[in-house]
Amino acid sequence: MKTFQTVKGMRDFSPEEMEKRQLVLDTIRGVFEKWGYLPLDTPALESFELLAAKGGGGEEVKKEIYYFKDQGGRELGMRFDLTVPTARFIAQNPNLVKPFKRYQFGKVWRYDRPQQDRWREFQQTDVDIFGSSSPKSDAEIVSVVCDVLKNLGFKEFTIRINNRKLVESFIVSLGITDFVDVFRSIDKMDKIGKDGVASELKKKKVSEKNIKSILKFIGGKIVPELEGKEELKNVMEEVASLGFLKNVKVDLSLIRGLEYYTGCVFEVSLGGKVSVAGGGRFDNMVEKFGGKSTPAVGISLGFERIVNEMERRKMFNVSKKKVFVAGVNDDVRKNVISIADSLRKSGVLIEIDVMDRNFRKQMECASKKKIPFVVIVGPKELKDKKVVVKNMESGNEKKVLIKNLVNYFV
Amino acid sequence: MKTFQTVKGMRDFSPEEMEKRQLVLDTIRGVFEKWGYLPLDTPALESFELLAAKGGGGEEVKKEIYYFKDQGGRELGMRFDLTVPTARFIAQNPNLVKPFKRYQFGKVWRYDRPQQDRWREFQQTDVDIFGSSSPKSDAEIVSVVCDVLKNLGFKEFTIRINNRKLVESFIVSLGITDFVDVFRSIDKMDKIGKDGVASELKKKKVSEKNIKSILKFIGGKIVPELEGKEELKNVMEEVASLGFLKNVKVDLSLIRGLEYYTGCVFEVSLGGKVSVAGGGRFDNMVEKFGGKSTPAVGISLGFERIVNEMERRKMFNVSKKKVFVAGVNDDVRKNVISIADSLRKSGVLIEIDVMDRNFRKQMECASKKKIPFVVIVGPKELKDKKVVVKNMESGNEKKVLIKNLVNYFV
Repeated sequence: MKTFQTVKGMRDFSPEEMEKRQLVLDTIRGVFEKWGYLPLDTPALESFELLAAKGGGGEEVKKEIYYFKDQGGRELGMRFDLTVPTARFIAQNPNLVKPFKRYQFGKVWRYDRPQQDRWREFQQTDVDIFGSSSPKSDAEIVSVVCDVLKNLGFKEFTIRINNRKLVESFIVSLGITDFVDVFRSIDKMDKIGKDGVASELKKKKVSEKNIKSILKFIGGKIVPELEGKEELKNVMEEVASLGFLKNVKVDLSLIRGLEYYTGCVFEVSLGGKVSVAGGGRFDNMVEKFGGKSTPAVGISLGFERIVNEMERRKMFNVSKKKVFVAGVNDDVRKNVISIADSLRKSGVLIEIDVMDRNFRKQMECASKKKIPFVVIVGPKELKDKKVVVKNMESGNEKKVLIKNLVNYFV
Repeated sequence: MKTFQTVKGMRDFSPEEMEKRQLVLDTIRGVFEKWGYLPLDTPALESFELLAAKGGGGEEVKKEIYYFKDQGGRELGMRFDLTVPTARFIAQNPNLVKPFKRYQFGKVWRYDRPQQDRWREFQQTDVDIFGSSSPKSDAEIVSVVCDVLKNLGFKEFTIRINNRKLVESFIVSLGITDFVDVFRSIDKMDKIGKDGVASELKKKKVSEKNIKSILKFIGGKIVPELEGKEELKNVMEEVASLGFLKNVKVDLSLIRGLEYYTGCVFEVSLGGKVSVAGGGRFDNMVEKFGGKSTPAVGISLGFERIVNEMERRKMFNVSKKKVFVAGVNDDVRKNVISIADSLRKSGVLIEIDVMDRNFRKQMECASKKKIPFVVIVGPKELKDKKVVVKNMESGNEKKVLIKNLVNYFV
């Protein structure tokens, strides 16, 4: 008999995995909502023209995404991020009340070479503010992400922050016109180190003196009086007011690729260099997609990395109250059902037999499903209006009055 | 400037719509979990071979789905339901503890002709039990769906139930061998009525006498002694024990298409004939997909129809506590932030200015965003450790001690 596989680079999530993933999603969502962000949802498919517009990549993009023509001949692609669809939404809806503070959760698809922890389908969790150019909005985005990480249980994390205007104006002040080429080298700092950056810049014919100045600048703590300094200062002041100064530090070497960022950029790490989120200000994107000029700032949380890291650190404690209500024979079925019903109404997660199994098999099932408590319903105890509660871990059993059962678990 | 559109037949969901959709999803999920169902997640893409296997449709299926080849030449399709991927998952994972009770939420895609309330991308919410052939499992599935509808706020709803074995054995008992052809006509009952069914059967050369018998049977309340009767009786008895007898009624005319159902079938309506959910027993599917023989029963809730119906009946009351904390000038920003922070910690959804707006503009923003309460922070009231709480609907203002503010909203 033919068996079928999952599509290459994609995976199923079993209930055990999904409970953890949902816990993370629920926590992130809860924090986003408390800060006044509302959910947005957009389709999995977008016109290829839209997807190709982002990087100005055009045909090149086809290699990196799931691209196809539908039966009507439309060129479509599965979305590779949530920012592009949102920017399209904003462009199509020019009258949204500003600031438009939205979060979006959803799968995205990339035709990457599958490798360790890199999948062709993965979950994204984005938060953005559209319509505000104030440093207060940069600071709020940074702070809401700090609050998310705190609520997920991370004790130590750092958001590095920089303002690309600052680096740009510094490089230009040195008399270098092609600042983008210099950006490209600085961006490799984490990978190739200071010396690597220096030798790259040398190859790019940057003078020894300028290389020295650049390295001093990006490694420095003192921000010179240049365009973008005031903005960065205002962001940091607001971050301090919001109570997250200890988690946020200025890093003048942070570039975050050559993509669409126009001001502040952010990179979030959990100690060490593993990035779990990144973002920045992208004031030109909505306009690029045909909308009104709309400043924007946001962060995309690396959901998959966060889940992996929480797993690795054993931070998951999915502690929902689960109870199996088992009947010792078929005569007590109605009692099993009514007890299950009253526990369910109090918010306990209840499972009862749906297999016509005898008592022993029911106990086995509860054990295999790792359900922590079994309520045993038998005729003898029922006469005293009681049931037996068995703690499946310790094996302890205790008689409990049915009317007290809800309090026992809630 | 070029503007981009959503893909034909697909749509965005604005925050206002999403808040409602999430309320429905959260409610459904809450009930499913209370009944011991756990979440499963599978990819959006499946191999075309798998998708083609369901109906035995083969190439025909291509016309109804988003089918394409990826760059590696793999024939893929976007899933058109959640049952097929789950059946694949079960087939691939033969050692899951049974009963495997899972729910799955997710988008599915169909290349339908777009029309009123029919979309090419839509949300499904499925609940199924794998591994049990007991009528108790049919009854639990029916009951959990009743519980969902109750919790969503529907006062009146009916789940019609039938057992296809019963109809089959009755038709065969009349000496008719091609019972499937008769099924096909009976299945149109809701659309063409009794007379329509009769004239169809006549065209199919069913004798007058048999047509009369069939119509009497499917319109009847008395279930004759035939295969499947005992099963149906047991399901109904368990439904009664579970407390949902008034919402469930036997309808011997219910067929639910010619698809993969092998026993009980269900159809859920909210008064009238509009179906909002359907399902049944499909004991052969997992085996068909290469797995061990695994009995299965489930219902797919028509999420989009349910949301539409709740909208139409004005059943939505998204009543999250939302508050805008407004500062009368920039000097009180720190107070605004600390008040926002303490309210957030108590679970209130808080928005503060991120636009460098003056007080009047902040009030306008709160009003446009329909935020019901504004906390006004001003230097004069701060001296008395107070703020002003404005009810935006009534316009009433009240001075409240900051330390009492949390209790005011929670």
